[in-house]
Amino acid sequence: MSTSVQQRGTAYDPSRIRHPHFRGLVTDAASAVEQIADGDTVAISGFASAGTPKAFAPALAERIRSVRAAGGRLSVNLLTGASVASEAEAMLAEVDGIALRMPYQSEPTARGKINSGEMDYVDVHLSHVAQQVWQGHYGDVDVAVVEVAAITEDGKLVPAMSVGNNKTWLDVADKVILEVNSWIPDGVEGMHDIYYGTALPPQRRPIMLSRADDRIGQPLLEVDPAKVVAVVPTDQRDSASALTKPDAVSEAIAGHVLEFFQHEVAGGRMPAGSLLPLQAGIGNVANAVLAGLAAGSFSDLTCYSEVIQDSMLQLIREGTVAHASATALALSEDGLTELVDNFELYRDHITLRPQEISNHPEIVRRLGIVGMNGMLEADVYGNVNSTHVGGTRIMNGIGGSGDFTRNGYVSMFLSPSTAKNGAVSAIVPMVPHVDHTEHDVQVIVTEHGLADLRALSPRKRSRLVVDRCADPAFRPLLHDYLDRAEARPDAGNTPHILEDAFSFHAGLAATGSMLG
Amino acid sequence: MSTSVQQRGTAYDPSRIRHPHFRGLVTDAASAVEQIADGDTVAISGFASAGTPKAFAPALAERIRSVRAAGGRLSVNLLTGASVASEAEAMLAEVDGIALRMPYQSEPTARGKINSGEMDYVDVHLSHVAQQVWQGHYGDVDVAVVEVAAITEDGKLVPAMSVGNNKTWLDVADKVILEVNSWIPDGVEGMHDIYYGTALPPQRRPIMLSRADDRIGQPLLEVDPAKVVAVVPTDQRDSASALTKPDAVSEAIAGHVLEFFQHEVAGGRMPAGSLLPLQAGIGNVANAVLAGLAAGSFSDLTCYSEVIQDSMLQLIREGTVAHASATALALSEDGLTELVDNFELYRDHITLRPQEISNHPEIVRRLGIVGMNGMLEADVYGNVNSTHVGGTRIMNGIGGSGDFTRNGYVSMFLSPSTAKNGAVSAIVPMVPHVDHTEHDVQVIVTEHGLADLRALSPRKRSRLVVDRCADPAFRPLLHDYLDRAEARPDAGNTPHILEDAFSFHAGLAATGSMLG
Repeated sequence: MSTSVQQRGTAYDPSRIRHPHFRGLVTDAASAVEQIADGDTVAISGFASAGTPKAFAPALAERIRSVRAAGGRLSVNLLTGASVASEAEAMLAEVDGIALRMPYQSEPTARGKINSGEMDYVDVHLSHVAQQVWQGHYGDVDVAVVEVAAITEDGKLVPAMSVGNNKTWLDVADKVILEVNSWIPDGVEGMHDIYYGTALPPQRRPIMLSRADDRIGQPLLEVDPAKVVAVVPTDQRDSASALTKPDAVSEAIAGHVLEFFQHEVAGGRMPAGSLLPLQAGIGNVANAVLAGLAAGSFSDLTCYSEVIQDSMLQLIREGTVAHASATALALSEDGLTELVDNFELYRDHITLRPQEISNHPEIVRRLGIVGMNGMLEADVYGNVNSTHVGGTRIMNGIGGSGDFTRNGYVSMFLSPSTAKNGAVSAIVPMVPHVDHTEHDVQVIVTEHGLADLRALSPRKRSRLVVDRCADPAFRPLLHDYLDRAEARPDAGNTPHILEDAFSFHAGLAATGSMLG
Repeated sequence: MSTSVQQRGTAYDPSRIRHPHFRGLVTDAASAVEQIADGDTVAISGFASAGTPKAFAPALAERIRSVRAAGGRLSVNLLTGASVASEAEAMLAEVDGIALRMPYQSEPTARGKINSGEMDYVDVHLSHVAQQVWQGHYGDVDVAVVEVAAITEDGKLVPAMSVGNNKTWLDVADKVILEVNSWIPDGVEGMHDIYYGTALPPQRRPIMLSRADDRIGQPLLEVDPAKVVAVVPTDQRDSASALTKPDAVSEAIAGHVLEFFQHEVAGGRMPAGSLLPLQAGIGNVANAVLAGLAAGSFSDLTCYSEVIQDSMLQLIREGTVAHASATALALSEDGLTELVDNFELYRDHITLRPQEISNHPEIVRRLGIVGMNGMLEADVYGNVNSTHVGGTRIMNGIGGSGDFTRNGYVSMFLSPSTAKNGAVSAIVPMVPHVDHTEHDVQVIVTEHGLADLRALSPRKRSRLVVDRCADPAFRPLLHDYLDRAEARPDAGNTPHILEDAFSFHAGLAATGSMLG
């Protein structure tokens, strides 16, 4: 069979499929997706820009088109690690191929379908996904489609450039399609730590990980060969994450964060030099903050995060970061090239884990993680909206921000103080959607400054957030709101004027600016 | 010195103070509180109705009055486990003796001072308190005042009827005042499990507790004798928690919860018979739910919770509950008598732990806790307001509800569907304060029914919450809101009409009813 498949495409590399049973299953993507039926729940690999199966989405989209052309029906429930490669997300959304999407997306076509009510979207903490699927909340997983770097002589799987929920998908799915991507450098083997010790309660036991570089699992994924229905060879580079060079705003934010770290060290709340394990969300601001660490007097830093961005490679290369743990790479074209060209250097300093471990509440609490995440907006009392523009339209999703914020040691949210050329303030009287509550948000940072909300009552927080973080153009409006709210006879512990609480958002809708 | 003290009061019982150093420190409360200076941070024992120092609050209130009468100033920052005995809270609030209060209160006088802005209040997850104080967010703790049952021959402390943060208070305070309460039955000794293994990062290690009845610590508290400045004998019963008999509404809620448990067992998500460890918040509804378990086909149930209420004693006596772990007792007069009269029976089935362990995210996640907490109101998408009436006026505080909701296995919120004789709906279009987000709230229950929100997108959740949980009188208003919100061109993933989102609350303010 392998001979015939070799004829089908150039991707087939026998050195990547080293077990005869799996060689016998080699086929192309078009044949593989015939395993997928209308209404199936399909769980695929992919976390951020890394590890999305390359052949699956084009083949499924094509199959959906042809089934529909013949008068049939075909759409699926799609489960992933987090976001997947944009082109894959877009292809399936464009053909209305996804009935339900879980747990995260960040792609315009899918976003549009969700906001118009055409696609069901369940926006879930990334640490909860594996346990919820295992519990059966999403029904049976019919098919798993997982990209791997290779299949070993004894039928184990060398993981690709992300781990995400792949361990769980392989465990729970009725059928498995493997994509074996020859582009992935051989050098990736050994970078992963796949932990097979999780369970559903009452069988759970302590997870014995106490440092970012601890290894508690094995380098390879397991799969029951009897469940594998197709092996699809591919040879395609991972997508690149879009990254821009740090600008003045993100550098100013980074400066405030670094000053805060020095303040924490001086106060004895973080060890000098090594600090505590850092987590940074995806994006330009987080990338800039990490890049800024190179200028600090830090050494032996560790990161325990979801993704590894370009700046992390630089910090490892320079020796500022001793170890980075994540569940996926999220590198630009240049970053990907840097990694692939220097795998020997990076492999000893990077560990990729299942996202149930990278984001696990037990580990996040134990390690004392410093969580740094982006946001859409915060209100004056420290409630954060990460997901819903105007309270109604989803942007991406909560992702792992809640995992790190809720159980971390220091929970920080970073954002430019304005958007849309100054028309939109990131600091508002009341957020119309809350993803992180005032009980959890400890520090807010914009380019103007940093508000440390720890141990402060709501009335003390509010003035601090305005004076430190809001753009000066919005400060008079925010103080006026607070003055009026506090002057009411029933002002209460958290003064608000409900009829004016969304005045910034109403102004934006009516005039195109929160300045009204 | 002990002789002279014996003359001061009848409370002194030498068998309770079995170490000569501590006998030498015996004094009365009036003398003890002279150790407290204006601006001090004072951390006291007490969690719910159990373990509040009995002599401290009256003595401090009296001292505040006399200091002020002499033209002086005296107020303190007061840290506790959670709520303390109402009479103690009220006494100190009445004399404006508290500048800052943390982490929880549930008493009318204190509530009034907080809502008028006269008292600063920091409303903190109970699992975070010890680590935040240890980190120094509240400055130095000048004085700890801790009730104990006895001081042993080797200078260790037999804990009282609650543990709370006492271990941390004794560790971090500069000076310690011990109240030795002879009323506490000798039989309490051995009921506690005080874990000394927590640390600040990066020194944290796994906490090796995997079952509700595991013991990982020691029965006694430690104190540095050099820090103890006074030992005050008392002989006074703990306060009683107010409990009413289950009424029809709370019994209906309990019925829906029991049916849900059967549904989970049938779905293979919980073990038959023993279920998973249960947590129930304080109050009549939680008490009724637990009482209802006696009627189910359950055995060997375990509870891993904050408090133990009356119904738990009944379940233990009947053999339905094998073990209950908590940080405090919250018993009625009758419950307290039942416990004290039968300590031999209950001691083997109850473990009292520090609240950093009873509410610890690591343990809550590992055990797979079923969290059941009360609420003020929920919105149609599953966001819950636990703390702020009308979004501004604090009721009590978040307490431990977030600890169990965020990291638990099933997160449930229970409430009667209406309050104020039907004028107030517990289901509203949008809550004006969010303590638990849509990402965390899984199940909402009122007397009308149960809405299981797991794996549902916002638009599917909203109709279910209205139809299952809202009072029929409010359903047309809620559906009308959703109809109008969903009909908007920019309805989005979570349809809302910001200018109408608080119409229920505006109606209540204007007319005295959310029916408008």
